[in-house]
Amino acid sequence: MPAGQRPGGRSARVRAAVLTAARGLLADGYAELTVERIAQAAGVNKTSVYRRWTDLEGVLGDLLSEYASEVVPIPDTGDLGTDLEELALLVRRGMTGEPGELITALATSAPRNPRAAQVVRGFLAERFRLAEAVVDHAIARGELPQGTDARAAIEVLGAPLFLRLLVVDEPIDEEFARRTAAATTAALRAGVFEPR
Amino acid sequence: MPAGQRPGGRSARVRAAVLTAARGLLADGYAELTVERIAQAAGVNKTSVYRRWTDLEGVLGDLLSEYASEVVPIPDTGDLGTDLEELALLVRRGMTGEPGELITALATSAPRNPRAAQVVRGFLAERFRLAEAVVDHAIARGELPQGTDARAAIEVLGAPLFLRLLVVDEPIDEEFARRTAAATTAALRAGVFEPR
Repeated sequence: MPAGQRPGGRSARVRAAVLTAARGLLADGYAELTVERIAQAAGVNKTSVYRRWTDLEGVLGDLLSEYASEVVPIPDTGDLGTDLEELALLVRRGMTGEPGELITALATSAPRNPRAAQVVRGFLAERFRLAEAVVDHAIARGELPQGTDARAAIEVLGAPLFLRLLVVDEPIDEEFARRTAAATTAALRAGVFEPR
Repeated sequence: MPAGQRPGGRSARVRAAVLTAARGLLADGYAELTVERIAQAAGVNKTSVYRRWTDLEGVLGDLLSEYASEVVPIPDTGDLGTDLEELALLVRRGMTGEPGELITALATSAPRNPRAAQVVRGFLAERFRLAEAVVDHAIARGELPQGTDARAAIEVLGAPLFLRLLVVDEPIDEEFARRTAAATTAALRAGVFEPR
């Protein structure tokens, strides 16, 4: 390292190289992914990868946190039904790309890897929390009563999409996302998520 | 084997012993479960287990098919909302017991084990298909229009429960099951699952 370069410079470059390599290899599927291949593609020693990330799930968790830190726009059209539909379509788009692959990989390794479980739960909790704004905006507009359980409604909207991603082997198409959103809107309008 | 004993007698006893052992050990959690331990508890040679079931997921899949073959009553009270609520409570009870442990174990090994994936998908598809009767009965009573998509409605009802089982680390309590059912009922009554 040249004298005067800021501490962490090399470390940051190694991280970027490893995450970029993981991202590239993940495009070929999770089944073929190993720490050894990532290290090779990144041009670093595999022991460096193990020292920093412990295992494959550690690398993937770090990559997922990169996605999670990207700003995703939360729909705010002034209409609850439209906002929920756009939200479902946004979630669907995320799932059909790299974050979907990553969530699947991490969720499925979770029972044997507490850190992976923590990363996935944290990711979902943060995404659900952000999405609650759609319901909160409807409450602020007077479209829904105060006290409506935004978290529960968002869970009903997101669950069918995540279940297809993780278990059910059927396409997550736009029609499916729209209908899931419509079901949530109907339940909200019927007062299912109001305080009793 | 004594002369005259029917073929398959020993084979059936080995299967029963192995499944009983797996069931007993599963109560201590999936993380500790191995083919070796199951074989030891069943009093059979581990090579016999590998020959018959190939791997741990093979044994668990066979055990799940045992649960799947048990007859589960489908609620038929004459009221859609009540039927869906009772259905959600039944699903919840199954999840909080041994079948829930098994589904989690198999679903999470699925990406690296196509047979496990097949078993879980088959189990869910069969359960969803059976549950569709609740919607079909409501159609037959005239409570819902012909052509209502029973499968989609059952997926919206079941998904939040399965997502909590597999990923989200929050309790699957009766209140949660009831609310999921109420959301599905509201969506059905609002026409979300009707043909367009």
